[in-house]
Amino acid sequence: MSLNPKRTIQELKELRELTADTNGAQRLAWSDTWLKARAWFESKFSILPIEHHIDAAGNRWVTLHGESPKALLLGSHLDSVPNGGWLDGCLGELAGLEILRRFATEFNGRPPVTVRLVDWADEEGARFGRSLLGSSAFAGTDSIEADRGRTDKDGIRLDAALKRCGVEIDRFPESRQEQKNAAAYLELHIEQGPVLESLGLPLGVVLGTKGVERHAITFHGQEAHSGSTPMNTRRDALACVAKLALEIRDIARKHPDAVCTMGSVKTFPGIVTAVVGRCEATLDQRDLDAAVLARMYREAREASERFAAEEGCTVEWSKIWNIEPVPFHPDLIEFSEQAVRHVSGTAHRLPSGPLHDAAEVARAGIPTVMMFVQSLRGISHNKIEDTKEEHLELAVTALDRLATRTVDWILRN
Amino acid sequence: MSLNPKRTIQELKELRELTADTNGAQRLAWSDTWLKARAWFESKFSILPIEHHIDAAGNRWVTLHGESPKALLLGSHLDSVPNGGWLDGCLGELAGLEILRRFATEFNGRPPVTVRLVDWADEEGARFGRSLLGSSAFAGTDSIEADRGRTDKDGIRLDAALKRCGVEIDRFPESRQEQKNAAAYLELHIEQGPVLESLGLPLGVVLGTKGVERHAITFHGQEAHSGSTPMNTRRDALACVAKLALEIRDIARKHPDAVCTMGSVKTFPGIVTAVVGRCEATLDQRDLDAAVLARMYREAREASERFAAEEGCTVEWSKIWNIEPVPFHPDLIEFSEQAVRHVSGTAHRLPSGPLHDAAEVARAGIPTVMMFVQSLRGISHNKIEDTKEEHLELAVTALDRLATRTVDWILRN
Repeated sequence: MSLNPKRTIQELKELRELTADTNGAQRLAWSDTWLKARAWFESKFSILPIEHHIDAAGNRWVTLHGESPKALLLGSHLDSVPNGGWLDGCLGELAGLEILRRFATEFNGRPPVTVRLVDWADEEGARFGRSLLGSSAFAGTDSIEADRGRTDKDGIRLDAALKRCGVEIDRFPESRQEQKNAAAYLELHIEQGPVLESLGLPLGVVLGTKGVERHAITFHGQEAHSGSTPMNTRRDALACVAKLALEIRDIARKHPDAVCTMGSVKTFPGIVTAVVGRCEATLDQRDLDAAVLARMYREAREASERFAAEEGCTVEWSKIWNIEPVPFHPDLIEFSEQAVRHVSGTAHRLPSGPLHDAAEVARAGIPTVMMFVQSLRGISHNKIEDTKEEHLELAVTALDRLATRTVDWILRN
Repeated sequence: MSLNPKRTIQELKELRELTADTNGAQRLAWSDTWLKARAWFESKFSILPIEHHIDAAGNRWVTLHGESPKALLLGSHLDSVPNGGWLDGCLGELAGLEILRRFATEFNGRPPVTVRLVDWADEEGARFGRSLLGSSAFAGTDSIEADRGRTDKDGIRLDAALKRCGVEIDRFPESRQEQKNAAAYLELHIEQGPVLESLGLPLGVVLGTKGVERHAITFHGQEAHSGSTPMNTRRDALACVAKLALEIRDIARKHPDAVCTMGSVKTFPGIVTAVVGRCEATLDQRDLDAAVLARMYREAREASERFAAEEGCTVEWSKIWNIEPVPFHPDLIEFSEQAVRHVSGTAHRLPSGPLHDAAEVARAGIPTVMMFVQSLRGISHNKIEDTKEEHLELAVTALDRLATRTVDWILRN
């Protein structure tokens, strides 16, 4: 039984049939539909000569023991956002399954190194606002105290939702044991952006995940009557936000891969007849280079203070979240490029703007790389998320080739 | 009994005691507190030799019949916004009462012309979103069909709330009968803006009420992932709004008294990790010159289309409401200026940005003028709304002087 990328596509469609409705995929982590997806997945690998278990953070590990205890990890996630797509997460998981099968067959159940497939729990964080939950527990970068009391839209606590699925949040640290013998981690994912499509390329080599600075910014001016307050006496908090919304674009454009986004603006009192007295905005800045990220943050902050002064307003910043850039392993980037070039003729290197479980694995010190496959229209987290089937097949083939090359590298190290 | 401006202040404080709580005035039109204010007001004028009634739109008319049936009208409103101030509306009403008393005394109950004091119903429109309700019925500019089904925050219909106070909305047109013999209308009001305070002047002469163009503007771009979408491929609807928020200030500043305000911005999906796909904003533009107002509207509209094109977005405009500028009567403006100069030494002419019942009276073809008294910090519609007592006294004196001059003018015409 050799590699069969068409089977991966067939299984992706099976999973969609089982777990999507007319609005898209509904494999929200810790939900019944997610558990159903996991049970279906178990039925797929249970025929293999493997050991499998769910760790203390809810991640599932499927292990094909090899001659060496050193382990090649392949993984992704089965969970989706509500009304999600058919590829985000499960493509990498089912491609990993196909490669696990290929190793099992080719080496009669005993490959040169151990091969492990992981299904990370709650990558999306869609229900509780905490993404990378399972992989951060694995990496030891979890934040149990901050997370246990998070609630979903129905007021259900995170710790209670996990417990219902047999996961005790206080035991998260035990999942770090899974790091033992891990020698490399590979993850295939849809790009979720428009870059590969715009270049006409099926596959891309991922350099790492961008660092993120995410802040809430509030400008305070003076609420005033829209009819009786002359223009030159206003202290308009919206004017500050408008200037900043435009300035962050110039700040980002100085750097080739940087992005800065103002995703939310709220005006108070927010009525047609009042000058805005208070304006709240969010800022999300990303780059693969920590120095670039730090500079962009500093520039945005300085600009906000300048605009506040110009408008007679004040400004406050409050950190929502941040993470440093996570560059992937140079040797694995090189192997990934070779594999991509081999199957598709050309290779493009790009950073990942979205975060992935791979970033947490890399933070744990495990050599890591990712491969992207083109997303049509750059759209994900939506039922119209799609990728050409010929590209999906190329992706499985390229990931398999990368896995073989990485096994050699593990054996040599 | 001569004019006693200190009594007006005393009565304003009495009314505050009766109808305000710790959050401010609560004389919301059609509420029990408003009815209580009106009953208190009745107790004040009932000792005078007058006739009084409530018209078909809920406006109360207090009439001191004179030698001539030609009538000088004085008026304002007792209703307030929720958590309002102690002067907005009731200052003009109680100043008018004091002047009515002075006419009654000076002329032994029979002044040369008829003097009528009106308490307009529901000037603020705070409960149903329809301001100038009573005065528009008087002027014949009402919009009964559009208004009858308006509901308050508890779902109570406008027509039901009025009926509870004995007012049938279908009889509104009968209130136009009150126009009969009306020869002039005078209204004193707090400025509700910072202009007089910034000039160090107690009183101002009002040239008219500005026209208003009020629109909802929606830009449509493309929602996209904040991490994976390069800056140069974005179609960011917020960028269009940011540009427009700044542009409308330049549009307004070409004209000395014009104002343009963006009071509300809403972002969709409005989350930190998504480029804004749709952005809704409101625009409020005002000027006393109809040509200036039309030009500002055109310029804002053209700018919005230019910005949409620059950002790969589209834009839609939807009219919320508009009203033409209402210039006051030149003779009465002149008399108002003389009165203000006489009592305070200097006079400043300014347009009113906020609308007032006086605008509706002027639209009915009745010669009209207003006088403003300084507002501390330019603040109204708030419990901290305030004016120096010495300025309130000057205002009553100046209005009385204007009334005398206007009576002479009515007799001459």
